[in-house]
Amino acid sequence: MNRIASIYPNDGVTLREVGLRDGLQMVKTWPSTQAKCAWLIEEYLAGVRHFEIGSFLPAARFPQFADVAHMVEAVAALDGAHSAALALNERGAEAALQSVVGELVCVVSATEEHSQANMRRSRDEAVALVANVNSMRNGAAPDKIINAGISMAFGCSIAGPVAPADVLRLAEACLNAGADIVGLADTVGYAGPKQVADMCRSMAQLCGDRAFSIHLHDTRGTGIANAAAALDNGARILDASLGGLGGCPFAPGATGNVVFEDLVFLCETMGFATAIDLDGLAKARKIAETAMPGEDFHGAINTAGAPTGIEWRA
Amino acid sequence: MNRIASIYPNDGVTLREVGLRDGLQMVKTWPSTQAKCAWLIEEYLAGVRHFEIGSFLPAARFPQFADVAHMVEAVAALDGAHSAALALNERGAEAALQSVVGELVCVVSATEEHSQANMRRSRDEAVALVANVNSMRNGAAPDKIINAGISMAFGCSIAGPVAPADVLRLAEACLNAGADIVGLADTVGYAGPKQVADMCRSMAQLCGDRAFSIHLHDTRGTGIANAAAALDNGARILDASLGGLGGCPFAPGATGNVVFEDLVFLCETMGFATAIDLDGLAKARKIAETAMPGEDFHGAINTAGAPTGIEWRA
Repeated sequence: MNRIASIYPNDGVTLREVGLRDGLQMVKTWPSTQAKCAWLIEEYLAGVRHFEIGSFLPAARFPQFADVAHMVEAVAALDGAHSAALALNERGAEAALQSVVGELVCVVSATEEHSQANMRRSRDEAVALVANVNSMRNGAAPDKIINAGISMAFGCSIAGPVAPADVLRLAEACLNAGADIVGLADTVGYAGPKQVADMCRSMAQLCGDRAFSIHLHDTRGTGIANAAAALDNGARILDASLGGLGGCPFAPGATGNVVFEDLVFLCETMGFATAIDLDGLAKARKIAETAMPGEDFHGAINTAGAPTGIEWRA
Repeated sequence: MNRIASIYPNDGVTLREVGLRDGLQMVKTWPSTQAKCAWLIEEYLAGVRHFEIGSFLPAARFPQFADVAHMVEAVAALDGAHSAALALNERGAEAALQSVVGELVCVVSATEEHSQANMRRSRDEAVALVANVNSMRNGAAPDKIINAGISMAFGCSIAGPVAPADVLRLAEACLNAGADIVGLADTVGYAGPKQVADMCRSMAQLCGDRAFSIHLHDTRGTGIANAAAALDNGARILDASLGGLGGCPFAPGATGNVVFEDLVFLCETMGFATAIDLDGLAKARKIAETAMPGEDFHGAINTAGAPTGIEWRA
């Protein structure tokens, strides 16, 4: 448990920057490794410490993540920074365990339909992979964290509604399989705050003193409202991406991940100190915008700036 | 009280479209009366029933509202539709009372500094105006509603922080002066959901079975989160504008009012039925976009559409 608490302190909120992974899944122009490193360092200097930085996938099929081993080294070089990367099969997990990555992210779909369509495996097989990765981890690099992300946890673009009980069963199965953290993802942005609140209360009960994470998309404008509901109901680890980079494969042109900058402002207004500087985020954003011309960057706080004349920070 | 309850039923949520008033305060190209009417009718056909449609101000200084008397007639012609317009002084109130407008909106600033800078009167004088308008209304058109909107209620761009107790005192003074409804406005988008929740709980206690309204701006990305907090804490009348039209005079280029389309989706996910059709809103938005080329229209649901395969409506 100490391994986890040192990375994800349970007395405050942790914001995970997933723009360098989820944000790059769909962009038209991939940033160079150099640009990624400049973006990473600028966000680190702004106070961000948690980076989901890529995916250990075949470089031939996912060239935007070909430099993942290099990127996790770049994170490791930054004092106090923590890297995570996707490991979607045994080969990916092996590569991840040989790298300096701090956290391996496995993905389990909430629905059988999406699991088969997206990963060509059943949900049970996906949970079995978590168990395998856990065994590999315990042998090779016991200090690395395993994060099991449950996609489509709030509604599925293929199967439609998702029963919360199914998600909770899967979450429990992942914990039993050795996951240190379970994350719930609103992959296609179907959720409203009531649904997120209910789910987080159940997750908090299931997880006890173990952390869980919430990965929200702003596809339908509810991203920040859902984040507020999550924070109000026990979630302490939230994903977001600079400028909301990410999009939605099922809604062309739609907004993507929750906007990191706006989430920082939200957290502070709710009494959760982030130690993240908005001006620094704006600098990082400029780097990302320059590296990916033609991509839409979203968010309000980057345009409006923080309120003046009031204490908006926690 | 029946007068109010027939317009703002207290067993559900009411969404007020303020785009034709607040949305036009800052736009570069004003839509023609014809375009406003086409926009109005399309939104009515989509299910919207409450329109803040302009301001009874000198046409020489505010030419975008020169047609306000005509516009309130256009609303009156639509079965079950309700119009509101600003009446910022006695002359405006007189003109409003001679019109077919259903609701006169008076404005009181939450801070002395903003009151003097914006209206050249003290807060006490602004409350006295509400009392005067009430007397005039009782004599001339007792079935019209008086709405007292308290601007800068969550923070002031001039004075900075605003004490909730000050806002509640002003709200009570407005009710005592004869206002049927008090509205609280986050004029410059300073609020977070915790602040909105606390304020709405206090307002619900103050107002008892009288309705109050909440006017939110999305200047810093918290608009929909704040709306969720308001709904969770007793607010049942919320302002918004199509495409978030409006902006912020203190933050050039910033997002404006809460996006009407996204607010409809939020309400439905929270169990508040709106009877408003998103496809119809998209048609109205096209009219407004065409009438105001170069204006930024915001919002996520207009791009992404509602979720498919799930029951997202209340």
